[in-house]
Amino acid sequence: MSVRCSEFSFEVQATDGDARTGVLKLPHGEVKTPIFMPVGTQGTVKAMTPEELHGDVGAQIILGNTYHLYLRPGLEVIEAHGGLHRFMNWNHPILTDSGGYQVFSLKELRKIREDGVEFRDHISGSKHLFTPQKVVEIQETLGSDIMMAFDECPPAGATDDYLAKSLARTTRWEKECLDARTREDCSMFGIIQGGTSETWRARHLEEIAVMDFEGLAIGGLSVGEDIEAMYDTVAFTAPKMPGDRPRYLMGVGKPDDLVECVTRGIDMFDCVLPTRNARNGQCLTSEGPVVVRNAEYAKDLSPIDPNCSCYVCKTYTRSYVRHLYRAKEILAARLCTWHNLHYYLNLMSGLRGAIEAGELDEFRTAYYARQGREAPCRP
Amino acid sequence: MSVRCSEFSFEVQATDGDARTGVLKLPHGEVKTPIFMPVGTQGTVKAMTPEELHGDVGAQIILGNTYHLYLRPGLEVIEAHGGLHRFMNWNHPILTDSGGYQVFSLKELRKIREDGVEFRDHISGSKHLFTPQKVVEIQETLGSDIMMAFDECPPAGATDDYLAKSLARTTRWEKECLDARTREDCSMFGIIQGGTSETWRARHLEEIAVMDFEGLAIGGLSVGEDIEAMYDTVAFTAPKMPGDRPRYLMGVGKPDDLVECVTRGIDMFDCVLPTRNARNGQCLTSEGPVVVRNAEYAKDLSPIDPNCSCYVCKTYTRSYVRHLYRAKEILAARLCTWHNLHYYLNLMSGLRGAIEAGELDEFRTAYYARQGREAPCRP
Repeated sequence: MSVRCSEFSFEVQATDGDARTGVLKLPHGEVKTPIFMPVGTQGTVKAMTPEELHGDVGAQIILGNTYHLYLRPGLEVIEAHGGLHRFMNWNHPILTDSGGYQVFSLKELRKIREDGVEFRDHISGSKHLFTPQKVVEIQETLGSDIMMAFDECPPAGATDDYLAKSLARTTRWEKECLDARTREDCSMFGIIQGGTSETWRARHLEEIAVMDFEGLAIGGLSVGEDIEAMYDTVAFTAPKMPGDRPRYLMGVGKPDDLVECVTRGIDMFDCVLPTRNARNGQCLTSEGPVVVRNAEYAKDLSPIDPNCSCYVCKTYTRSYVRHLYRAKEILAARLCTWHNLHYYLNLMSGLRGAIEAGELDEFRTAYYARQGREAPCRP
Repeated sequence: MSVRCSEFSFEVQATDGDARTGVLKLPHGEVKTPIFMPVGTQGTVKAMTPEELHGDVGAQIILGNTYHLYLRPGLEVIEAHGGLHRFMNWNHPILTDSGGYQVFSLKELRKIREDGVEFRDHISGSKHLFTPQKVVEIQETLGSDIMMAFDECPPAGATDDYLAKSLARTTRWEKECLDARTREDCSMFGIIQGGTSETWRARHLEEIAVMDFEGLAIGGLSVGEDIEAMYDTVAFTAPKMPGDRPRYLMGVGKPDDLVECVTRGIDMFDCVLPTRNARNGQCLTSEGPVVVRNAEYAKDLSPIDPNCSCYVCKTYTRSYVRHLYRAKEILAARLCTWHNLHYYLNLMSGLRGAIEAGELDEFRTAYYARQGREAPCRP
């Protein structure tokens, strides 16, 4: 049996259909699920301080990117600080990806081998090899609360032949990741692949669920498939995942996706959307998107979201934020990021409350109604 | 007699040679002098929130740019918010320049007329005319605590003939600015020009000092002249300025300049240097400049300034800040700006304490010694 994390537990607290709330205990603190994890690719959630993230926005756990941190600043620098938490001054849980997704995205610059992936990085063009052992070593050096296993994310529309080979290799790699663990203060999640095929997903889930992972993730979605195919895949996969372990849907998503996938049994999410959109002047609100850079907001004295209690909405007008955006001021990115992350975290908090109260239907109806839409049927 | 500000007072509290401390009361609050004013060109001090600026960095008063705000977002937008303070959520004093300096900097795009300056703006290329009346109207719409009179800033090395014409016109424009005032909750400072010539400075000071300005400024320095010429000009001008009114040295300067010009009797400063340098990864510290982007700091676990008590120095290493800078992260600009402004405001606070204690010599000696230098002689 491989090393297990001695400071990990997960307890489901309430359910409403397939949706559930829970408490996830990790080496650096507790996380209430379902939760959204802001993405901190390069050792910072873009434009935010850790204090703003935790205290004001309410982030409980953030995501770091193994590939980016390995390249820059490099492990030696992070190790000298005693790990990623201290490097970036975030004293709460961190989940790191395995770098697999980033490496596969390099396309022409990478070559899949049976023992791992060879690639040239996007910064200096130097050659590297990521193996299951290597990505565990990196993530243990980072000191992640949750490390992710090394997998291949097959492209949308991959053939059965491709999937068969890829999934077999991913299963083997994931087993090797478990075997490579040495730290008892880092947990590890396995990843289920299989595209949008119910058969492949079920088959791969069976292989991964029997392994000693503290939690399981659905990978390979939000890579170009239809939104309905994504929701269906989550609907037929999540409820089959072991109920006593957290379920993480990787790289998802839009606010609707959070609502729909929590409804289908997901506990954890991450996505660059709220932070990336913020830097493009796109705000997410209870009444739908507000593209604050648009001329219609030039003299709009209302807050970004009239139903929001965040610092930005309590303090500034759409008109001011639009001015900052047009003037290319750094504060524009800060304020939009702050609001968007607050909106996401607040949405998750609302979902948790609704599930605890057994009122997820009512929550969904109200969520869509505020945007002038009808709630889609629950699966 | 022109309109005067009903909520303005200035009281000198202590002196040490030509240096002095004072309390400046303005419509939006009190300012302890000598003081440095962070520059908020476009309705934001770049990368900072007002709460950080006031609460953490200790800024008491900031500067806004008439030219930039007039062009974007435009007066209608700021007026709709009830003025610049509410637009940008800064509830403390604001000084605005007259736009003169920006307009003269447009070179080929502007034409000096006897009644004002005609120019094409740098954003849309549209034609505008700034007159004394116009810049007062704009600044009153902004609701500045301190408006600046409209002047021409002669280029470094201007001939006597040029200076004679320019100063006569500036004197007339400044008088017209006073006559154009209508608001009792906005004060106005006059500007002394005259290059680095003691004769011209004295002559112009005589003309401006008799007018009803609440304070006086030295303009036209830090425009390319030698540093010694600048210090000399301040030394022979400042002590002649009326002692019961605040003395503002426009657009200055480096930390040394603040120390030297406070010593020579200046009460107020503004400069983009601490904020602009911050965005280039250049930090100012008690031990001299730290160019945090440099490779030598890659693994440096010490704070930017070991003698600094700001949030950044208490929390992050040079290594981390360098990483953020190399990764082009917004947080790099935030942290360096935060530290630099704290350094400037803290330096001013140190100077005030030294003057109050009659220990300016000791302060100067220690200031230079920490940087391995000897204090220049006091004038």
